[in-house]
Amino acid sequence: MTDAKYELLTIGNALVDVLSHATEEFILEQHHKHGMERGGMNLVSEARAKDLYDDMGPAIESSGGSAGNTAACYASLGGNGAYIGKVANDQLGEVFRHDLKSIGVHYDTPALRDEIATGRCMVLITPDGERTMNTFLGAATELTPDDIDEELVAASAITYLEGYLFDPPLAKEAFVKAAEVAHKAGRKVSLTLSDPFCVDRHRDDFLKLIEGHIDILFANEEELKSLYGILDWSEAPAILHGKCEVACLTRSENGSDIVENGNLIEIQAKPTNVVDTTGAGDAYAAGFLFGYMQGLPLAECGDIASIAAAEVISHVGPRPDVELRTLLPAKAA
Amino acid sequence: MTDAKYELLTIGNALVDVLSHATEEFILEQHHKHGMERGGMNLVSEARAKDLYDDMGPAIESSGGSAGNTAACYASLGGNGAYIGKVANDQLGEVFRHDLKSIGVHYDTPALRDEIATGRCMVLITPDGERTMNTFLGAATELTPDDIDEELVAASAITYLEGYLFDPPLAKEAFVKAAEVAHKAGRKVSLTLSDPFCVDRHRDDFLKLIEGHIDILFANEEELKSLYGILDWSEAPAILHGKCEVACLTRSENGSDIVENGNLIEIQAKPTNVVDTTGAGDAYAAGFLFGYMQGLPLAECGDIASIAAAEVISHVGPRPDVELRTLLPAKAA
Repeated sequence: MTDAKYELLTIGNALVDVLSHATEEFILEQHHKHGMERGGMNLVSEARAKDLYDDMGPAIESSGGSAGNTAACYASLGGNGAYIGKVANDQLGEVFRHDLKSIGVHYDTPALRDEIATGRCMVLITPDGERTMNTFLGAATELTPDDIDEELVAASAITYLEGYLFDPPLAKEAFVKAAEVAHKAGRKVSLTLSDPFCVDRHRDDFLKLIEGHIDILFANEEELKSLYGILDWSEAPAILHGKCEVACLTRSENGSDIVENGNLIEIQAKPTNVVDTTGAGDAYAAGFLFGYMQGLPLAECGDIASIAAAEVISHVGPRPDVELRTLLPAKAA
Repeated sequence: MTDAKYELLTIGNALVDVLSHATEEFILEQHHKHGMERGGMNLVSEARAKDLYDDMGPAIESSGGSAGNTAACYASLGGNGAYIGKVANDQLGEVFRHDLKSIGVHYDTPALRDEIATGRCMVLITPDGERTMNTFLGAATELTPDDIDEELVAASAITYLEGYLFDPPLAKEAFVKAAEVAHKAGRKVSLTLSDPFCVDRHRDDFLKLIEGHIDILFANEEELKSLYGILDWSEAPAILHGKCEVACLTRSENGSDIVENGNLIEIQAKPTNVVDTTGAGDAYAAGFLFGYMQGLPLAECGDIASIAAAEVISHVGPRPDVELRTLLPAKAA
C-alpha cells in the first residue's frame, strides 16, 4: 500500500452538528410526539428540523458527519487523509470545508449550487452523555456517483464508507461505485454500520455488501444484533468468520472486541469523564485505521482507537479538542 | 424598579464566535504580519477575516458578542432579560437569534436584509486559556438609533451597554440614545469598557460618558489604566469616586474589586481549570447584575459574578455549558 497517495479516504454525509444539552423529559416528550429514538440517528424533514430547533435549547455548532469526523481524527493523529461529501454553497458549508481543510484533510467535492442548504444534525445530549441525533440531510442527499473521484479512490489505501450513506438514494449509488473502484485498484474497503436504525432500514443491502466486499468492518453491539439478529455476543466471531478481514466491535464503556479469522482480541476502553458521546465511534475508527496503516498489531490499533474515542467523548462536540497525536504512546506517534 | 418588565436589557454587537486553538507562534506571526494584538479585540475587514480563517485551525461556532453573552448568562442564572443587536438574514444570524431566544431572552431586533453577512469573531485560544479576538463586524455595523426600541429601554430596570458599540459609528449613536432614554425613564445605565484597545480608540468619548451618565461600570485593570492613565491600582477608588454609583474592577485570577463611594470590597476569584477565557467578563457582569437586581449586598453580587465567570472559562466558548442557576448558593438562586 506504500504507493497510495492517501492513506485513508472517507466518504459520508457532510453535516454540521448543532449540539445542545437536553433533559430526559425533553427526549421522552419528543419520542411520544414525534417518534424520536433516544440514542439513535433520526432522519428529519426540513420543516421538522425547524420546529425542533425552535423547541431545543441554546447550542454550539461543530462540523460533524460520521466520516467527516473520522477524517478529522485521522489527520489529528498525524495521518494523511481525504474526504468526499456534499455541502451547499452557504455559511455552514464553508464552516464544514474549513474545518477539514485546516486540519490537513484533502477535500474538494464541489459545493452544491442550489436552494438546498448544507445538512445539519441536531444533537441532543442527555445528562448521561448519550447523544440523540436528528439529521436534516440537506445538500448531503445530492451526493451522486459523479462526485466519486475515481482517481482519488484508486490513490487511497483504504476507502472508508459510513452506513448512513445508504439513506440518500444517490449517495447509496455513490457508495457502491466507490467500493467497486477501490477494489478494482487493489485497495481496501472499510465500512461502519453507523446506527441500528439505519441497519434496520437497509438490512438486506448491508448483508449483501458485507459478504465479500468489505475488508474492515466497524459495528457496535446494537448494530450487529440488528444486522444478524444475534442475541449472544459470543456468537459474533463465528458469524463474521470469512465475511471480512477484520471486524471491530465497539461496546461503549466495555471497550471493544477485534475479530480476525474467528479469533477475538479484547480491548479496554480508556477511562474518561464522559461528557458527550457524539463521534465516539468515528474517532475509534480513525484510531484503529491509523494503527492499521502503520502495520501495528491489532491490539495496538485497538488501543489507539480507545485513546482517540476517549478524547472525543470528554467534551461537547465530535471533533478532537486537542491534537490526538500528542496523546499517543511514543512508538505509535 | 419593580415596575420594570425586564430586569436587564443588554445592547451590543451581535456576533457569532469562531473558536479555535492556536499556538503562541501563530499569534506572534500574525502580530508581526498583521499587527494582531494578543489578548485584545482586533477589528478586521471582510477580506482579512477570510484570510485569517484560511490560515487558522479547525473551529467550533458559538453565539457570542459581549452583551449577547451577558444576556445569555443572565437568563441562565434565572433572570429576566432582553437584548438589542443586529444580525443578517443568514444562517449565522439564525443561530445567534436561536441561542438567545431559546434561553428565554427577549430579542426582536429585525435582521438586516442586505448583502452584509452576520458579524463574526475569530477567537484564537492559546494554551494558557487567553483569547485573542479578531472581529469582522458585518451586520453589527448597521445597528442604528432606529433599532433602539424606546419602550423596551424604558421598560428595563438596567440598560447595559458594551464599549465595543463605540466602534461602528451608527451603533455609537444608538448607544447614546439608549442611555438617554433609560435615564429619562428613571432607569439605571451600566457600561463595560470592553477592551483596552477599544478604550484607546475612544478615550475622550468614554471619559465624557462616564462622568455622570453611567451608574454601574465594569472594567478590567488594563481598561481602567488605558482610560485614566493610572499606574497604581490603589488610586482607582479615589479616581472613580463620584463618577458612578458602583464600579466592578475585574482582575482575572486575582478576583475583582467592587468600588462604591470610594470604598473597596475585595472579591475572590472562584478557582477553576482555565480552558478559554472568552466571555469571562461578560459572565461576571451578568452575575453581578443578577445579584444587584435582587438587592443583595455587593459582596454577594461579586460572589455570584465569580461563580458565573468560573463556569464560562472552564470550557471552550463564551456561553454557559450548564444552567448557571444550578451553581448558585441556595439563597441567591
